[in-house]
Amino acid sequence: MRIIHDARSVKHDPELFFRRGSLIPHPERADRYRVLRDAAAAAGHRITEAADQGLGPIRAVHDAGYLDLLSTVWERRAEIPGVGDEILTGHFARPHMHRAPTGLLGRLGLHLADTSTPIRAGTWEAVYGSAQAAIGGADCALDEGHAYALCRPPGHHAYADSAGGFCFLNNAAIAAERMVAATGGRVAILDIDVHHGNGTQGIFYARADVLTVSVHADPADYFPFFAGYADETGSGEGTGHNRNRPLPHGSGDGPWLDAIGEALAEIAVARPAALVVALGLDASEHDPIGVLRVTGAGFGQAARMIAGAGLTTLLVQEGGYLCDALPRNLVTFLGAFDAARNGA
Amino acid sequence: MRIIHDARSVKHDPELFFRRGSLIPHPERADRYRVLRDAAAAAGHRITEAADQGLGPIRAVHDAGYLDLLSTVWERRAEIPGVGDEILTGHFARPHMHRAPTGLLGRLGLHLADTSTPIRAGTWEAVYGSAQAAIGGADCALDEGHAYALCRPPGHHAYADSAGGFCFLNNAAIAAERMVAATGGRVAILDIDVHHGNGTQGIFYARADVLTVSVHADPADYFPFFAGYADETGSGEGTGHNRNRPLPHGSGDGPWLDAIGEALAEIAVARPAALVVALGLDASEHDPIGVLRVTGAGFGQAARMIAGAGLTTLLVQEGGYLCDALPRNLVTFLGAFDAARNGA
Repeated sequence: MRIIHDARSVKHDPELFFRRGSLIPHPERADRYRVLRDAAAAAGHRITEAADQGLGPIRAVHDAGYLDLLSTVWERRAEIPGVGDEILTGHFARPHMHRAPTGLLGRLGLHLADTSTPIRAGTWEAVYGSAQAAIGGADCALDEGHAYALCRPPGHHAYADSAGGFCFLNNAAIAAERMVAATGGRVAILDIDVHHGNGTQGIFYARADVLTVSVHADPADYFPFFAGYADETGSGEGTGHNRNRPLPHGSGDGPWLDAIGEALAEIAVARPAALVVALGLDASEHDPIGVLRVTGAGFGQAARMIAGAGLTTLLVQEGGYLCDALPRNLVTFLGAFDAARNGA
Repeated sequence: MRIIHDARSVKHDPELFFRRGSLIPHPERADRYRVLRDAAAAAGHRITEAADQGLGPIRAVHDAGYLDLLSTVWERRAEIPGVGDEILTGHFARPHMHRAPTGLLGRLGLHLADTSTPIRAGTWEAVYGSAQAAIGGADCALDEGHAYALCRPPGHHAYADSAGGFCFLNNAAIAAERMVAATGGRVAILDIDVHHGNGTQGIFYARADVLTVSVHADPADYFPFFAGYADETGSGEGTGHNRNRPLPHGSGDGPWLDAIGEALAEIAVARPAALVVALGLDASEHDPIGVLRVTGAGFGQAARMIAGAGLTTLLVQEGGYLCDALPRNLVTFLGAFDAARNGA
């Protein structure tokens, strides 16, 4: 498996995270990138630095005002009274407050969805680099049949116009959009992160050319709370082209693999030109914030099932937090995928 | 002037406030209640404890699900992992995430708009008491021609279904609704807090029987950011029945008093049966978070102008934060209002 990465990923390394009234250590650390890259290299996968293909493929998915904020707010931080090493906000655009303010503080509340996505000195470089890994990965998968984009920070909670859930740029969506453009065909996204891929769903919700399917922990009492329910099936031209499979917390390998199997069956019916897998590893039983209790063997089986679909496939790293099982599950997944593709 | 208050106001005393990446001391302290009450008493005003008139008048304004959350979440706090002395959330319902989750954590994100409204052991008692002061104040104003409701915590950023901006229950809206019911006529709300009364606007935006007028600092780069612009004039039957007068930051007495004068002229045209003044004192030049630089003399002049309208008037305390000028400006305002009403 070719591993496409961008070393700028480490330039965003948030320290703290405001959750339920307290500042706690932020789980989405730069070390995730190092641990995953080193494990893949040690397992013999080919490590390739992504080329920089510019903002075009990112602009194809994200709102211009949001990109302007993300790329310039750190330079403009002197306009924010009392700002320190991190730019964050405690106020947010709400369903009943639609007005887009012009000032910097208001724009932060418009484009940041929660308190988990601080903007630091290197944040724009890191998320831009993470997106370049996705873009390069998409091209590589189209060339070679499959690839793994080591995207970090992750992306699937980012909407076209907002960061949230540790995510800034929606790497999987950027890759899928690029594959739609390259193939002229339909692309499917299968999201197996423990959290619903709400941003990805939102970006493609009204579109028929990208089928979005997510298998995740029931959001009724779990992030992202406000989306990820089974009855969200798309809107307008996209009706029928979004599928959610929320699972009971703690359900383990069986229900998770069954849901992935059903998702792959739906994807097969759609006959996509390519598949993007939003590969969160936080469904693991050992993940510090996961709740689905999937074993290492479960990840291997998921990889075999996905490989068995026989589609041009890009794996895009999403969540999965620091623990001994994190690199092990990546290596298991990549190894099982390769073995299945090679008929081993 | 009769002062209607509820001693339970002190039972909510938040310590910290997550703003722009840091936890800072919360400005909306219980001492505000004590300072304002003691100053009014020392100035010779009659201090009356509000009777408890139950949930009915609160339910007339607020969403049942929101009230259920506010009144029960502290007892259910064991369901929130890692909760301490304050229940807060860092995730929020967004314009593109309309789904109302059933779990407690998701409901917090639905009904709390920002990181400024922690729910503590005594929060429900305090906000319920603050609303009782508004209800009692409304009744008293209808009986006696005018009254001051010492509401604390404040209310004007609370929507029907959400807390925000230090506010939980919209005291001014609850009072106005009660006065509509009691008089069968139209009621006007004049909000002179330094911040736009977004919750009050939201509650009555589609109604013609409550005219809402707010004079405040331009929200383009100031809380509440997402509402308070001059072109927000109401919707449906309420079209034309909401007016906003955003003022440049630092503009001082002149523009503030001009705007209040224009607001009173509009209110006079509407011939309301009663007037509710959302009396923030944070437009003061000395307020720690205010930006309008109004002097003590400015508050006195505002009081004379409002008293001069000759309407049945309830003054409802909104913002205004701890500084030497806070009690002084209240005493100035109440004294000037009384003097004008007594023809002094």
